[in-house]
Amino acid sequence: MTDLKRYIPILEWAPRYTRQAFGDDLVAAAIVTIMLIPQSLAYALLAGLPVEAGLYASIMPLLVYSVFGTSRSLAVGPVAVVSLMTAAAIGDVAQAGTASYWEAALMLALMSGGFLLVLGVLHLGFLANFISHPVISGFITASAIIIAMSQMRHILGVEAQGQTLFEVLLGLLEKITAPNFATLAIGISTIGFLAVTRLRGKQVLRSFGLAERSADVLAKAGPILAVAASILVVALFGLEARGVAVVGDVPSGLPSLTFPSFDLELARQLLAPAVLISLIGFVESISVAQTLAAKKRQSIDPDQELIGLGVANVAAGMSGGYPVTGGFARSVVNFDAGANTQAAGAFAGIGIALAALFLTPVLYNLPKAVLAATIIVAVLSLVDLAALGRTWRFSRGDAVAMVATIATTLGLGVEIGIITGVAVSIGLHLFRSSRPHTAVVGRMPGTEHFRNIKRHDVEICSEVVTLRIDESLYFANARFLEEEVSELVEASPNIKHFILMCPAVNTVDASALESLELINARLKDAGITFHLSEVKGPVMDRLKRTNFLDDLTGRVFLSQHQAEKETRACLDAPSGSDTPLVAAQKASSSTGT
Amino acid sequence: MTDLKRYIPILEWAPRYTRQAFGDDLVAAAIVTIMLIPQSLAYALLAGLPVEAGLYASIMPLLVYSVFGTSRSLAVGPVAVVSLMTAAAIGDVAQAGTASYWEAALMLALMSGGFLLVLGVLHLGFLANFISHPVISGFITASAIIIAMSQMRHILGVEAQGQTLFEVLLGLLEKITAPNFATLAIGISTIGFLAVTRLRGKQVLRSFGLAERSADVLAKAGPILAVAASILVVALFGLEARGVAVVGDVPSGLPSLTFPSFDLELARQLLAPAVLISLIGFVESISVAQTLAAKKRQSIDPDQELIGLGVANVAAGMSGGYPVTGGFARSVVNFDAGANTQAAGAFAGIGIALAALFLTPVLYNLPKAVLAATIIVAVLSLVDLAALGRTWRFSRGDAVAMVATIATTLGLGVEIGIITGVAVSIGLHLFRSSRPHTAVVGRMPGTEHFRNIKRHDVEICSEVVTLRIDESLYFANARFLEEEVSELVEASPNIKHFILMCPAVNTVDASALESLELINARLKDAGITFHLSEVKGPVMDRLKRTNFLDDLTGRVFLSQHQAEKETRACLDAPSGSDTPLVAAQKASSSTGT
Repeated sequence: MTDLKRYIPILEWAPRYTRQAFGDDLVAAAIVTIMLIPQSLAYALLAGLPVEAGLYASIMPLLVYSVFGTSRSLAVGPVAVVSLMTAAAIGDVAQAGTASYWEAALMLALMSGGFLLVLGVLHLGFLANFISHPVISGFITASAIIIAMSQMRHILGVEAQGQTLFEVLLGLLEKITAPNFATLAIGISTIGFLAVTRLRGKQVLRSFGLAERSADVLAKAGPILAVAASILVVALFGLEARGVAVVGDVPSGLPSLTFPSFDLELARQLLAPAVLISLIGFVESISVAQTLAAKKRQSIDPDQELIGLGVANVAAGMSGGYPVTGGFARSVVNFDAGANTQAAGAFAGIGIALAALFLTPVLYNLPKAVLAATIIVAVLSLVDLAALGRTWRFSRGDAVAMVATIATTLGLGVEIGIITGVAVSIGLHLFRSSRPHTAVVGRMPGTEHFRNIKRHDVEICSEVVTLRIDESLYFANARFLEEEVSELVEASPNIKHFILMCPAVNTVDASALESLELINARLKDAGITFHLSEVKGPVMDRLKRTNFLDDLTGRVFLSQHQAEKETRACLDAPSGSDTPLVAAQKASSSTGT
Repeated sequence: MTDLKRYIPILEWAPRYTRQAFGDDLVAAAIVTIMLIPQSLAYALLAGLPVEAGLYASIMPLLVYSVFGTSRSLAVGPVAVVSLMTAAAIGDVAQAGTASYWEAALMLALMSGGFLLVLGVLHLGFLANFISHPVISGFITASAIIIAMSQMRHILGVEAQGQTLFEVLLGLLEKITAPNFATLAIGISTIGFLAVTRLRGKQVLRSFGLAERSADVLAKAGPILAVAASILVVALFGLEARGVAVVGDVPSGLPSLTFPSFDLELARQLLAPAVLISLIGFVESISVAQTLAAKKRQSIDPDQELIGLGVANVAAGMSGGYPVTGGFARSVVNFDAGANTQAAGAFAGIGIALAALFLTPVLYNLPKAVLAATIIVAVLSLVDLAALGRTWRFSRGDAVAMVATIATTLGLGVEIGIITGVAVSIGLHLFRSSRPHTAVVGRMPGTEHFRNIKRHDVEICSEVVTLRIDESLYFANARFLEEEVSELVEASPNIKHFILMCPAVNTVDASALESLELINARLKDAGITFHLSEVKGPVMDRLKRTNFLDDLTGRVFLSQHQAEKETRACLDAPSGSDTPLVAAQKASSSTGT
């Protein structure tokens, strides 16, 4: 039963559902529904699908997520970046506007859902962690730029296609000389209206005396107002006849349950996009879900979230939708509007179902330019080029990964962009840890502390050399360590004892073990005793399972202080001579601890 | 001038060359030449090339390596694994025995040399470090098995081909029913003789009164004795007429300098093999060079070694050879025989040139079975399946990478094998560091030390929770940390202060910074103060370049002791009540420090 509750969280919360929670959820659902209607239509347009696909993607997925999801605030449905990725993926396998195009979208949703389910059942959600923050940030910025530019054709009232920035711009440039002026007027005024309500709406409403929260929520209704007003204007002035592209006939009613005919070749072509869409969607969803849950000291279960989103996508694929995920903006609205449980999401799904049943005739006169304007204003807020500067100041490597992601996404498309970003960030991480920070250390006079001889005035003894390595030892840096030791030994003519100080070595793999054995053997050949100090418990446990400690010419010391004391003592003993501590020469310009 | 000496090491050592060194080098070269003649012929056979290609690959490459190489003991030339990889690479693009097959081998050597030169000039030798020891070990074991099995056709005296173990076995099984018995007799007796001389030769020679070192060196002459004896036997008994395959006519003379006609399509096909051959060859060469250099407290320069091997391969490609590298066994012989400088290698090259000029007529009657036998005995000593058990005991992840390498190399070929091994080992490394070891710590009574509450009897205070993380923080484990903190906070109802203890955190990347910011914000929402302790200097320097420290609700403490003291003090102050230290419940069965 506990297990069942883990996999079907509704069994956990539904029995304790209260009238109070029902009221809260209903209010939040009403607000989210109003926000979701124009978004659903617009994102379907972005994905190259008929607008009703957006509505359908906002019905069943929301209902099933409320059964399987663990976030009480997440609002699932079509989102901008996933819609763009959908367009890119199925644009490669089918012609936009055809039945097979929509079929491919259903297939993509099913495959993406299936992949998320597999990740959830096998607890492989950590795979999404390999898409680093700078890569996601760069990817979203670049995607937003492509999305905004691609929607310009609806604002200009021209036909143009393209998946990379270059293609989109080229398509637009060809047509820009002959825009439809009625469309342009509607588009530009909508962008202006939406931008103003987004930036100043709340302030204006508050100056009319509305309460903080009401003003906040009402300001989010800008898009639905624009939709309503534009429908009226087009109908009143007969603008369709003036060449304003409108949504046109949208079938009334609910989607029927279908299962796309399975096409192995299509599945093969959609596999990589489905995997990428799943991971990107999961990353976007999980971060907003975790942030909102933390605000109320609730928690979510990432593995179960994979299952919740997986089932939602399967439902999207079987009910005329396309890939969905938890949206950032609308989840925040849901949370702020007081959503108490997952039921709020289900109610919003029912709200969209009612819209699909009764509202579609009204949508006939809705100009595509208005939907494009809502997309443009929404996505431009996602463009964050300032993040590049912040990242550069903090970490050059991350900034390089970010630039690579932005450049390849803009230039070569979303799929290559995200793959390049991940490859570059993994490569740079491996590169960094393959050349770890090391320091020759000496004793701070009068203490038991050992510090970098380049940074501090420390005492050293020319016959005992201690190298501290600040990284776990593994294959990529094992040979680096060998070289560091060789160079150090070569530069230390009097060396009798070499101590490797390991306070930051969290693991030692088989390659590093062989390197340690080699170092031991090479030092032995050269008449130098090899010691270790400050080895961590788990590393020591592991070394004990090998012959290394038997072969080690020296000892393993718990503390560096002890290592230094005892190696110096054994120097003193045989020779009887003095082995003076000399003050190490501190280099004037260097980094390190 | 210094720079010139760095890139052309012969300018460094030649002016100081002594008569004594000349004598040493000449003796070593004579011994290496005797060892290299049968090896060169045999490995050429393994690569699917005419035997003279092996001789040619042992002339110019040795001469140029002595100019550009930094190892005084390395013996460059054809080696088993690289010969197998050559056969696999060019077997895909040309038919064995044709002129275009040899042309492809020359191209491969040129490309491989060019790639090594690029790596050397750009200081990219560390790339080879990503081939971990277990992957190399597994790769060599699997290659040796394939090589030995593939040579069985020469022992049986049948025709059979194949690059994977499966293909080789299948080819042999088809023909095994009709062996050539004269060939089989020669092959089996040679294997027996070589195995005995290898295992017992030194002992036997010493029992005849030879000195240790002479016995050691003479025992290595087994293959040349087998070659000489078999030539005599075949000539005396006219065995060629009995179906014993012999080497036949080998052209006398030195190779002419050529440059392969450049074929872009061929270059494209050979690119991946050339890269893999370069890296594997470099790894094999550098490890033996470093080991031998260390024995005399000399050092080698890895970047210059790339240049030395690169030029050697270019030379091989321009003088009728095929890819070469520093061989393990023969470098050890060179070292043991007293090689003093790089000149020993050049003298061995001259030795082989003399053989190519004057010895080839003698080789007519050399049975291929004898060459195959020398290969089989040499490579079987490389098979190290016991390494699998040793690795498994030390590190499961490394053992998995090793098994994956062996299985894919045997089953799918050398190129897929090495790529799979590298991918698996990088994947497992990332996986491990994505779920680092963490421990909730408490104070050891009466000390300033903090230890894992699951392992030690420590004192904790329910309002102050400290988590120690034993890994650098980066994108792959950033979200893991967020989850750990969430779970810990949820399980600690009285928590007021949360301390993240960072003694093993060597770096924090941009993703981890965002996670730390999120953790700070989430804890703030929940009314919990967030502190850090024992942050390393370079990490602190980096954090200071961001707003993180301004936004941090708590403080950064130099030591965990101070962190605990001060957070407890600020608990005591406002409430005035007692916040008793309670003895943490030590879990009975758990791991960690």
